[in-house]
Amino acid sequence: MGSDYPPSLRCGLPGLILSLETAFILIFWFCFSNESGSTPKDLDIYPAFQDVNVVVILGFGFLLAFLKRYGFSSTGFYLLIAALGVQWAVLVEGFLFSSSAGKIKISLHSILKGSISVTAVLISAGALLGKANPIQLIWMAMVEVAAFSTSRWINVKFLKVEEHTSLMHVHIFGTYFGLAVSWWLYHSSLSERVEKERSNLISDLFSMLGALFVWMFWPSFNSVLIVDLMERRNAICNTYYAIAVSAVAAFALSSLSRRNGKIRMIHIHHAALAGGVALGFSAPIIPHPWIAMMLGLLASVVAVLGSHCLQTYLNLVLKIHDTCGVHYMFGLPGLLGAIVNVILFIIIKWASLSSLGYLALIEVGSFMLTTAIGLGTGFITGFILTFKLWKTLPASKYFDDQAYWEFPHLASRF
Amino acid sequence: MGSDYPPSLRCGLPGLILSLETAFILIFWFCFSNESGSTPKDLDIYPAFQDVNVVVILGFGFLLAFLKRYGFSSTGFYLLIAALGVQWAVLVEGFLFSSSAGKIKISLHSILKGSISVTAVLISAGALLGKANPIQLIWMAMVEVAAFSTSRWINVKFLKVEEHTSLMHVHIFGTYFGLAVSWWLYHSSLSERVEKERSNLISDLFSMLGALFVWMFWPSFNSVLIVDLMERRNAICNTYYAIAVSAVAAFALSSLSRRNGKIRMIHIHHAALAGGVALGFSAPIIPHPWIAMMLGLLASVVAVLGSHCLQTYLNLVLKIHDTCGVHYMFGLPGLLGAIVNVILFIIIKWASLSSLGYLALIEVGSFMLTTAIGLGTGFITGFILTFKLWKTLPASKYFDDQAYWEFPHLASRF
Amino acid sequence: MGSDYPPSLRCGLPGLILSLETAFILIFWFCFSNESGSTPKDLDIYPAFQDVNVVVILGFGFLLAFLKRYGFSSTGFYLLIAALGVQWAVLVEGFLFSSSAGKIKISLHSILKGSISVTAVLISAGALLGKANPIQLIWMAMVEVAAFSTSRWINVKFLKVEEHTSLMHVHIFGTYFGLAVSWWLYHSSLSERVEKERSNLISDLFSMLGALFVWMFWPSFNSVLIVDLMERRNAICNTYYAIAVSAVAAFALSSLSRRNGKIRMIHIHHAALAGGVALGFSAPIIPHPWIAMMLGLLASVVAVLGSHCLQTYLNLVLKIHDTCGVHYMFGLPGLLGAIVNVILFIIIKWASLSSLGYLALIEVGSFMLTTAIGLGTGFITGFILTFKLWKTLPASKYFDDQAYWEFPHLASRF
Repeated sequence: MGSDYPPSLRCGLPGLILSLETAFILIFWFCFSNESGSTPKDLDIYPAFQDVNVVVILGFGFLLAFLKRYGFSSTGFYLLIAALGVQWAVLVEGFLFSSSAGKIKISLHSILKGSISVTAVLISAGALLGKANPIQLIWMAMVEVAAFSTSRWINVKFLKVEEHTSLMHVHIFGTYFGLAVSWWLYHSSLSERVEKERSNLISDLFSMLGALFVWMFWPSFNSVLIVDLMERRNAICNTYYAIAVSAVAAFALSSLSRRNGKIRMIHIHHAALAGGVALGFSAPIIPHPWIAMMLGLLASVVAVLGSHCLQTYLNLVLKIHDTCGVHYMFGLPGLLGAIVNVILFIIIKWASLSSLGYLALIEVGSFMLTTAIGLGTGFITGFILTFKLWKTLPASKYFDDQAYWEFPHLASRF
Repeated sequence: MGSDYPPSLRCGLPGLILSLETAFILIFWFCFSNESGSTPKDLDIYPAFQDVNVVVILGFGFLLAFLKRYGFSSTGFYLLIAALGVQWAVLVEGFLFSSSAGKIKISLHSILKGSISVTAVLISAGALLGKANPIQLIWMAMVEVAAFSTSRWINVKFLKVEEHTSLMHVHIFGTYFGLAVSWWLYHSSLSERVEKERSNLISDLFSMLGALFVWMFWPSFNSVLIVDLMERRNAICNTYYAIAVSAVAAFALSSLSRRNGKIRMIHIHHAALAGGVALGFSAPIIPHPWIAMMLGLLASVVAVLGSHCLQTYLNLVLKIHDTCGVHYMFGLPGLLGAIVNVILFIIIKWASLSSLGYLALIEVGSFMLTTAIGLGTGFITGFILTFKLWKTLPASKYFDDQAYWEFPHLASRF
Repeated sequence: MGSDYPPSLRCGLPGLILSLETAFILIFWFCFSNESGSTPKDLDIYPAFQDVNVVVILGFGFLLAFLKRYGFSSTGFYLLIAALGVQWAVLVEGFLFSSSAGKIKISLHSILKGSISVTAVLISAGALLGKANPIQLIWMAMVEVAAFSTSRWINVKFLKVEEHTSLMHVHIFGTYFGLAVSWWLYHSSLSERVEKERSNLISDLFSMLGALFVWMFWPSFNSVLIVDLMERRNAICNTYYAIAVSAVAAFALSSLSRRNGKIRMIHIHHAALAGGVALGFSAPIIPHPWIAMMLGLLASVVAVLGSHCLQTYLNLVLKIHDTCGVHYMFGLPGLLGAIVNVILFIIIKWASLSSLGYLALIEVGSFMLTTAIGLGTGFITGFILTFKLWKTLPASKYFDDQAYWEFPHLASRF
């Protein structure tokens, strides 16, 4: 049956990519230039920038390479949307946050912020893994980066949220944007897991490799934007303690969740990384290691419980299909971190601040606003992505590299 | 036959992990706090710290992922015992080495030293790979970290061994502790290699990946603790020369060791890394590159000869089963390095020191003491680990992920 | 048939390696010593040095691990020739560039330059992948490193080319040296792709891993040698923009190149990396990001077009077999970068320089000279490598690990 063939991307994809790139180059031409001056202020963050780069480009791509027939797409399309998304994020951020006249100055910091912003897209793409084609992913990346930067701009300009905190909203934003899009791409055949939506031993090892890179460089991710050196050091140590506890707890919780006591690889990935997500906001201000460890433990519990209970019930009821479980890996731990951040803020500032209630309210408002913008824009984007125009895949071709890639064992390499 | 089923970990593992973590968090609560002050002294080692982190978390885990049916356990349980062991090492080191009253201050240096200390456990676990279950590994990690830190404390306090040198004892300590434990876990069926104790093409490639990460970041491992910048630079360069020579020599020696001249992957891993181990002690004080290269060559010879001869004869006689050959990869090169270090010490200080003989004796005593403590505590730990209480595996279930992990192709992922 | 067995390496390889290493150690003994002084000048480049190290040791090795039966040799022999080549490069560069009397001082910079020089060998080896045995590779590495260093010496001494630029010639030199050698190793059976010369899903994922490491650390590779901090920062940012665009464009171009619109993994690797190669020369002096992006786009086009057209026609006519397509990944983008560099040089210096024409001519002469030396020495080396003396493989044993490696599933591990 012809209708079962996945639509060829040849007309859509190259045109879309090349016109976007042409537009980007033109905008960069007329509006952007490299920051100049006698001494660069941003070279000292280069090693930490590379850690973040590894997380974004290699870590997430391989983390999501667990589907046994979707390894090329996971690693390949993640490179595509990350590399494209960073350029777009630098553009959007440049226009939103630059105040001076003349050409907008960009530097290593711009690329770094772009890389962190684009994490939102990578998280959303995790929920859609195997269901969206590259054309849909590119459009989603465009809309989501713009929406996230706007949300961040509102947070920074009007709610006076700090730069670091506003970028750490990326986990929550990415998750709820992705879930909203995922609701539109739901298909009844997804309610029971198909054969292709499984992992095998080798794809799970590749996924472990990606997970370890994200895990190891979480301290860099949570600290690189912090200006105060003492706070940066604390952010590194606190994040380390939190992810150490969440990784250890993951084994206990995963074993508890099954009657036969066996451990699930996916739980380890979810829960080990959850600790780092939960620390995003408060890593620099947590005064004692035990608080970070406690938070890591809680994040691990939330991730495994979420993956165990909500996946089975909530997603079925809401008709959401979340391929790699971003809700439990990034969403819930992110919300937990945001709430703990507010509580910590109140405790630390209790004595010294008169307008405490007002400020705490703003903190709460900030992450709720971000969640709302994420859900809202995601909902609209998801609706648009269902149009036939984007050459949507039939559900029978989900989770399969063969729809997009020429297979090496079927073809010569050149 | 019911007795052939591996005992479920469900009762033991979660309880053990969660009580340990609770205890850790409580101890951190009452006794530890983040180092404070105006400027952090330890942020400049962060890039090298991350290199060590990659070696410890990813490098060793994947290096030992060579068993074809044990990849999940190698990478997963290494993450578990590394993350747990670092917390415990920070605790133990804090109590042993802190002198000031009040809460013990910890910083990035504490985590770094913890990461290096925990290498002892990872090396020991290499000897037990596939034979010990996670409960046994956790108990071993607890005892071994405490024993290593105590041994280090004796070295630093009484024998006035330097911080860097005392931590580089980790290879020797880990090896002999692991071999002693391994003696107790010996089973007659291990004398001939079973099918499951083999590698396949893919597991060997993953192992190569881990080996390369350890190899590449050895210079960081051997230099990060050195305070003097000139010595740190020399340690980096000397380690690089040594591992370059040992990696190259590995190919020659491996080819020589077989009648048909074919190369064995395992020899390459053993011998390439041996150079870095041998340089551990003397990397900063070696005055000329050729000495480092010579030492790298010797280490490579020791590793391949060891792997070829001792494995076949000594281990059979002693009834020791050393799954990944830590004796040749870490033990013998470590001893070689310690001896060369004493010789170098005597040569360099020949003219300038009156009490040379006494000091050289202390250097010798230092590593022999460490070896003895390792063997002794390992022997006791091994005996304890044979108790049925720890749900020991039957030998027929050795080297098999299926005893612990829910397999992805047999289950849905959530 | 006995003649079909690959010749055993046992007589040749160990002797060659051990005598080379002995010679190296002796030369280092009599002629080299570690740089001394009160403060090391090169410790601040250590993080970037490690990035380059990852590219050289792990990146290239795994990038070329795409042949389904050649993974051990790709990763193993690349470690061998890289580790051997760096020692030799440090030696040769020391003798050529050192002017002071007495022992030649070497430092981390020497190793860094050695690592970058050895990239030429790794690129050439890419063209010979699967066809040359380790003995041939080692001889090639010896000759090529010496030839490249001599070519660099001529460039620096007589044409007054900058250190950074002269080392970035490595891509062009390596490619044309490799292609010339490849011409001699051509065999008629190579004109149609054999089964063994294909990749499979897993080998392509390993290759993706290597490609991503090279991609991520390209900015370090292109910037680490630049002394001026502002230029170094610009080189990092410009390289990042270029590789981001070339990675994105790779998907468009690959999809365009096939009638069914499917994407080829090999195109992604070629084109994504081409952007970094093209930026090698001009990364520090490009004044605006859009120029870097434009250049990345052009490099991507060159790589995919090259891989599509030239591979099919040119190579057949010239009787060259370029296993991994280094001509399109490194050669053509390198030439493109060199030409753009000259144009940029003319534009930037237009107003301020009187002897512009003369200087521009020297720039052109510089890379043409390098190409010529590469082709010439490669041609001679290739001829020598065809001698039976080197135990050349019969073409039926090409692309097969089994000729060199003892297979794990056929043997016990020790």
